Amino acid sequence: MAQSLSWTETAPGIWKLSVGKPEAYNLLTAAESQPNVSAIGRLGKTGFPLVQNDISVRIENGKTYLRFPLDRGEQLFGFGLNFQTVHQRGKILQLHVDHYGGKDNGRTHAPVPFYISSKGYGVFVNSARYITVYAGTAARKDSKNPPVAQDRNTDKRWSARPYSDAVEMLVPAEGVELYVFGGPTPLDAVRRFNLFNGGGCLPPRWGLGFTQRVHRLYSADDVQKEAAEFESRKYPLDFIGLEPGWQSKSYPCTFEWDKTRFPQPEAFVKDMLNKGIRINLWTNPYVSPDAQLYPKIAPYTGSHTVWVGAVPDLTIPKAKEVFWNVFDKEHIGIGVSGYKIDETDGYDYYLWPDVATFPSGISAEQMRQTYGLLVQKQSADLFRKRNQRTYGLTRASNAGSSSLPYVIYNDYYSHEDFITALINSSFSGVLWTPEVRASKTSEEWLRRFQSVCFSPMAMINAWASSTKPWSFPEVADQVREIAQLRMQMMPYWYTEFARYHFEGTPPFRAMNLEPGFQTDVRKEVVTASLEENPYVEAISKEIKDQYMAGEYLLVAPLSTGQTSRKVILPKGKWYDFYTGQYAGDGEVITVTPGLAKIPVFVKNGGIIPMMPPLLHAPKPDQRVDLEIRHYGEKAGQYRLYDDDGETFNYEKGQFSWRTIRTERGKNGQWTGTVSAAEKGKPNTIGNITWRFMTK
Amino acid sequence: MAQSLSWTETAPGIWKLSVGKPEAYNLLTAAESQPNVSAIGRLGKTGFPLVQNDISVRIENGKTYLRFPLDRGEQLFGFGLNFQTVHQRGKILQLHVDHYGGKDNGRTHAPVPFYISSKGYGVFVNSARYITVYAGTAARKDSKNPPVAQDRNTDKRWSARPYSDAVEMLVPAEGVELYVFGGPTPLDAVRRFNLFNGGGCLPPRWGLGFTQRVHRLYSADDVQKEAAEFESRKYPLDFIGLEPGWQSKSYPCTFEWDKTRFPQPEAFVKDMLNKGIRINLWTNPYVSPDAQLYPKIAPYTGSHTVWVGAVPDLTIPKAKEVFWNVFDKEHIGIGVSGYKIDETDGYDYYLWPDVATFPSGISAEQMRQTYGLLVQKQSADLFRKRNQRTYGLTRASNAGSSSLPYVIYNDYYSHEDFITALINSSFSGVLWTPEVRASKTSEEWLRRFQSVCFSPMAMINAWASSTKPWSFPEVADQVREIAQLRMQMMPYWYTEFARYHFEGTPPFRAMNLEPGFQTDVRKEVVTASLEENPYVEAISKEIKDQYMAGEYLLVAPLSTGQTSRKVILPKGKWYDFYTGQYAGDGEVITVTPGLAKIPVFVKNGGIIPMMPPLLHAPKPDQRVDLEIRHYGEKAGQYRLYDDDGETFNYEKGQFSWRTIRTERGKNGQWTGTVSAAEKGKPNTIGNITWRFMTK
Repeated sequence: MAQSLSWTETAPGIWKLSVGKPEAYNLLTAAESQPNVSAIGRLGKTGFPLVQNDISVRIENGKTYLRFPLDRGEQLFGFGLNFQTVHQRGKILQLHVDHYGGKDNGRTHAPVPFYISSKGYGVFVNSARYITVYAGTAARKDSKNPPVAQDRNTDKRWSARPYSDAVEMLVPAEGVELYVFGGPTPLDAVRRFNLFNGGGCLPPRWGLGFTQRVHRLYSADDVQKEAAEFESRKYPLDFIGLEPGWQSKSYPCTFEWDKTRFPQPEAFVKDMLNKGIRINLWTNPYVSPDAQLYPKIAPYTGSHTVWVGAVPDLTIPKAKEVFWNVFDKEHIGIGVSGYKIDETDGYDYYLWPDVATFPSGISAEQMRQTYGLLVQKQSADLFRKRNQRTYGLTRASNAGSSSLPYVIYNDYYSHEDFITALINSSFSGVLWTPEVRASKTSEEWLRRFQSVCFSPMAMINAWASSTKPWSFPEVADQVREIAQLRMQMMPYWYTEFARYHFEGTPPFRAMNLEPGFQTDVRKEVVTASLEENPYVEAISKEIKDQYMAGEYLLVAPLSTGQTSRKVILPKGKWYDFYTGQYAGDGEVITVTPGLAKIPVFVKNGGIIPMMPPLLHAPKPDQRVDLEIRHYGEKAGQYRLYDDDGETFNYEKGQFSWRTIRTERGKNGQWTGTVSAAEKGKPNTIGNITWRFMTK
Repeated sequence: MAQSLSWTETAPGIWKLSVGKPEAYNLLTAAESQPNVSAIGRLGKTGFPLVQNDISVRIENGKTYLRFPLDRGEQLFGFGLNFQTVHQRGKILQLHVDHYGGKDNGRTHAPVPFYISSKGYGVFVNSARYITVYAGTAARKDSKNPPVAQDRNTDKRWSARPYSDAVEMLVPAEGVELYVFGGPTPLDAVRRFNLFNGGGCLPPRWGLGFTQRVHRLYSADDVQKEAAEFESRKYPLDFIGLEPGWQSKSYPCTFEWDKTRFPQPEAFVKDMLNKGIRINLWTNPYVSPDAQLYPKIAPYTGSHTVWVGAVPDLTIPKAKEVFWNVFDKEHIGIGVSGYKIDETDGYDYYLWPDVATFPSGISAEQMRQTYGLLVQKQSADLFRKRNQRTYGLTRASNAGSSSLPYVIYNDYYSHEDFITALINSSFSGVLWTPEVRASKTSEEWLRRFQSVCFSPMAMINAWASSTKPWSFPEVADQVREIAQLRMQMMPYWYTEFARYHFEGTPPFRAMNLEPGFQTDVRKEVVTASLEENPYVEAISKEIKDQYMAGEYLLVAPLSTGQTSRKVILPKGKWYDFYTGQYAGDGEVITVTPGLAKIPVFVKNGGIIPMMPPLLHAPKPDQRVDLEIRHYGEKAGQYRLYDDDGETFNYEKGQFSWRTIRTERGKNGQWTGTVSAAEKGKPNTIGNITWRFMTK
């Protein structure tokens, strides 16, 4: 039957609706996320963004049917981590945690049931079920704006996909919690969503440095040698990832150190820490019958195995305790800094089937949709208890995870689609790394390297091929240069993550969330006047190969075979990141940057704080000199974030925002100022050099 | 909770189990199928083929979980109309009526929830829900034969897909009807399944002749000219299919004749009938708002439209009456002989969404799974009421349809995969045509033509390109020759369909259902001794490019680019169809037949009754001369079926089986006899010529 709907504003601009009998176990309970209400409050009030009577909810035979209205020109974004498309209107998706199978059909590592409208609002369905989404594809007889029948025999206007005026969703449960997020802009709706999930994660500073994963059968010696080689070759390195061979057995896992390859794990980890390099451990959560843990966890595991490993039911407190105790004692207790938690996504042939049962009574479907959330949250808590931040890798996530310090990765390997995923991650409150694995050519190696240095995690994951940053001698210097640039930009990256945390703004995000860009998207524009105005044509297509990085930067990567590319500059003046030269204003430009450069553009008035190219992230309280760059002709302002970079003391007020200002005096000379550090607050700024890039 | 199971033998060798609250609307009620109990009885008794305690059924939270045991060497077939694989063990499928999207994942035109085991039994789940199948992929902790954990770090035996000892299925309903079909052979289980569904359909004789579909905008004149050209060029032709333009509007449809293109439909149809050519009409079931029918059917249509057409809820008696009345009056009443009912399968972007509702209360999911059954059954009944057989085309089907006179076709167009679909159709009680559409080369045209002449419907569906059988002059004669061979073999085809009807044996079927073949399938055999014994290697792979046609023939088509191919001959001697020469015995042979021939082999003792190459199927009571061919060194026996070829009088006993025998006398001379016609029974046999093909 249809439900009469009563929305409650749970935080400014966020409305909740409970219909039917919502299940107690859902995405938010699995993620244990807590809204940052005061931060949401700072976004200000806004009205309910939809006509409430146009929203329909119906519960029938144990299923919930949802309908939200769509205007004719409205565009939709989100629905999780898609890899090939940014615009989602016109799609049918079944949201299902899975590996990425090459199609944007809802099966992905983070099938977040949240969408953003170009009209400046968001809709979130808080259900851990496989939700089927008809994003403007299904036409109803009772539509207020029905499509008109055409005769296909003779009418050339006939379309196989008639117009639809609604997003419809099927949730296979007897009720559900719904949320609507107000704007007024799409970015505001995203911010509200992220803050509702606790705000974005703030990684430790070292998490934004460089990371390398080493061969699965490397010994402690091998790892130490590799770290030394990074140091001697002057490639930055902040953390090293050990692949399965650190465990005595893997697939299924023992979670125990292999004593042959790592005879003294504690000494090894300590030695690496002393060298400024942290250790990240690969694992999957499936327990080997040979693990010491096995008899203790066995009663709390699911009916079906994954590679013959038992699947812990991590919704059961006792299971959590028994399972994570090993991680806490054997890894984190000796200094391990993070995890790469593998294979919590799928695919179907590997994971537990939908017919599996778990001792908690949570269904296999719900477990599939949330397992990535459970392992992220519960492993992160181990570090939090030690007042230590972590930053790791996960294969699966979902709504509610914005605050969890994990970056999604996968086995797919299209450079172009990796960029599209980076763009889409910003609509779903997740982070994504376009990791570098094997490359066929030095060009590919360098191009991928450039992209990953402008992403949430600068990672090489080429352990299988044992490729090192310097393995292609002809680009080894360029690789070092871009890796060093990543390090130099750390003050900017760190601040942008702080904005993710405190304000909800995704550090890497879609052009569609950028105001000067968004307003120009006109899907209905045709190509007739292409020669007169290529911009109009360009923006009528999906833009899935350029993105915003932090407040001021626009990144337009090139991939193998490209020597030049088009870049769409939103309205407002833009400047070349490397030279400070004017690049354009609300137009399509063509760039030919050469192999060594990834095209990056800075907004007029942009300020980019940079540090020297250290090989490791600064330690807490380590004073770091800054080069503050200013771009363009407008006066600039930037709030630079600072804290100890490692602990959660910032939650107790131990952080500072320093205001950087630049202005041009009457004499035409630019000057810059940085506000004084507050007393008792962190202050790691050393000497400052000002560079006014635009002459 | 787990259910205690009590199986009831509903017919000899067929056991039923009702668990939980099975839904009243299911595949069998939609198809309105009725078991042929006496025919099942003739298959004899057999024991319950599984250990009952190894079957598990559990109902939880509105879903039914099924588990059936699997032995280590057991192979599985079926699960509907797959296109690329014959062996289904190791697959995960979601059975879902859909167009074929290029992957055997359960989404297909006939996702029949029925599987056949190499051990000689079948399992059928009578549910109109989307059923998820784990066909030996999910490993349980409580398995009696669990896989053993391996250490992937170092163990080369490690497998990503550990052994599983069960077929598990998830039915999203609170209960279900299950059926187990005994053997003892896999073919016996298939026979029981088909007879349980009423026995296979018996097409009219003309249905086994040749058919051509004409351009969608052809007028009556155009059609008449095309028929005349077939006649003058001496290409056989039994029925012509009119595409959308016969309707005044299409997509959505009016079901009304277009008065411009067909000013006098009745005179046109009668004229064609007089020329021995029947008319088949394309339609889809989606009702145009401009159809005269519309206001009457509108109250009985679903919430969502398909191409702006209303979707009749054909489970409602009034809707059936109103909807089919137009067909009965406007088409069948003036002499139309059949339909091609399009687009009842999908795909998702075209069809009604899963959130649609129907006035009967039947869910969108159930409607999707059964719509093909509803239109087949209900349209066939219109002809039955007139005591007139039909034979048409459907895009969607499901379990329960064996007796419905429809052949499945689609838009996919891989010649190789079309053959695999033909093979798989035999496991699911459906028929499939590897139709000929456009071809790039004369070779492709001829090769496809050869295949379709050895299939349930010899159809050219090249209307879009307007290709005619003679359009490639260099193969026009060969095309005529194979089309004529199709006609010559009509007594054999017709008899084999009678066996489908009366005995349940699929006329075109997998090698795996052939006794001498089946017993040799050993999946575990490795290739080590390939040179010594290629047969062992060959049969360890999937055989998906050759099939059985009727009792005696083995067909091994070639596709474009192939000039020779391997053919696996089951145990027993086989002979070349064209020459009668010995071909081999339980071995792999290589054939190089030339472009004009499709390789066909005849079993030792095989008898093939043939008639002259008429251009149209014989009329009722038309005496037809026979050439009876015998192959091999064994005495032969064949039961030749006869009836009027057009009505259902055979259901009242108006049919005859004539026994043909061949034997070699002491003098080495072969002789043949045909049993006398029973008094009062049909007898259309004219003069008989005997040809003993093997010298």
